[in-house]
Amino acid sequence: MRNPELTRSIIIEEASKLFNSQGYKATSISDITEKAKLTKGAIYRHFQDKSSLEKEALRYMCNLMMGDIKQRIVHSQTSREKLYCILDYFEAYGKNPPFKGGCPLMNAAIESDDSNLELKNVVQYIMKQINDSIIRVIQNGIKFGQIKKDTDASSLSFLMISTLEGSVMMFKIFDDNIYLSNSINYLRKEINRILI
Amino acid sequence: MRNPELTRSIIIEEASKLFNSQGYKATSISDITEKAKLTKGAIYRHFQDKSSLEKEALRYMCNLMMGDIKQRIVHSQTSREKLYCILDYFEAYGKNPPFKGGCPLMNAAIESDDSNLELKNVVQYIMKQINDSIIRVIQNGIKFGQIKKDTDASSLSFLMISTLEGSVMMFKIFDDNIYLSNSINYLRKEINRILI
Repeated sequence: MRNPELTRSIIIEEASKLFNSQGYKATSISDITEKAKLTKGAIYRHFQDKSSLEKEALRYMCNLMMGDIKQRIVHSQTSREKLYCILDYFEAYGKNPPFKGGCPLMNAAIESDDSNLELKNVVQYIMKQINDSIIRVIQNGIKFGQIKKDTDASSLSFLMISTLEGSVMMFKIFDDNIYLSNSINYLRKEINRILI
Repeated sequence: MRNPELTRSIIIEEASKLFNSQGYKATSISDITEKAKLTKGAIYRHFQDKSSLEKEALRYMCNLMMGDIKQRIVHSQTSREKLYCILDYFEAYGKNPPFKGGCPLMNAAIESDDSNLELKNVVQYIMKQINDSIIRVIQNGIKFGQIKKDTDASSLSFLMISTLEGSVMMFKIFDDNIYLSNSINYLRKEINRILI
């Protein structure tokens, strides 16, 4: 018999791949049992219902993605390096996407808005965390004299997130990372404008 | 008996609403027959298969959206007014979204990338048309001495599309148009930089 923790991990990993490439609603529990080579009973022993598994899969994918960016930010010294880290991550994303199916947060955001409020709450929570992290980097930059005092931290953070997510969408449509490179160039200039 | 053109319009309208709010894959032909109060036979008399109906519904929604922007652009005099038109459209979008379920092009783009290549081709075609229109406005502006000669038309067009689409996504997540207003303010500044 398998270790229950290992079984749980396998379910989350396989479900994540399916949800992110073919959609949450369009993926059935049977699709997941087939990929994970498990029975429905095994899945329901770990997750109360499909909705719980959807939320857990989204958290798992976003933690992987954000954990990577967070590590880079922590190991950067200056505000410029910390903000550039985020852009570097998306630049690498265009060359070697970390997930098949595109940005998990964007996919869940587009799918969940009208029809899946529980998933939408998770999307909101994670997006707020990302936004707060960028704002904190900018505010610390102001505090330590590396970023101009009159910088609107929320405004720059909103712009970075919107522009990067929109570029990931263009990347998905055309399978061409010119949109990401282009937006990243603009955002680098925008960051340079606020640096002291 | 109904007029066949009217029946066709009803099918497209009802299918569009369903595809845009609950997704293409997740919407069955039965969902559409129920909403349109028609039989499956009636639908298959007008559309060869579900895929043909999906493509036609996407074209219909995008034509409605783009027709509106095109009219505004045609009736504007200067390059500045023409480019601002596009931003104004998205600003109004934040206050009164033209479609339930968000931007039809973004929804189709996110859903179609991996699993629905026929729909992806339509998304690519329409997105290319939008991009070409913006580039043409900028190039004409250069030709008629209203926009600086060294402006990179493609680069600004890519930025406008990516930033606006990403902001529509944020609007969907938080039901708050602050992200759209923020991006539009930034894009207005970016446009002002290239004007003569």
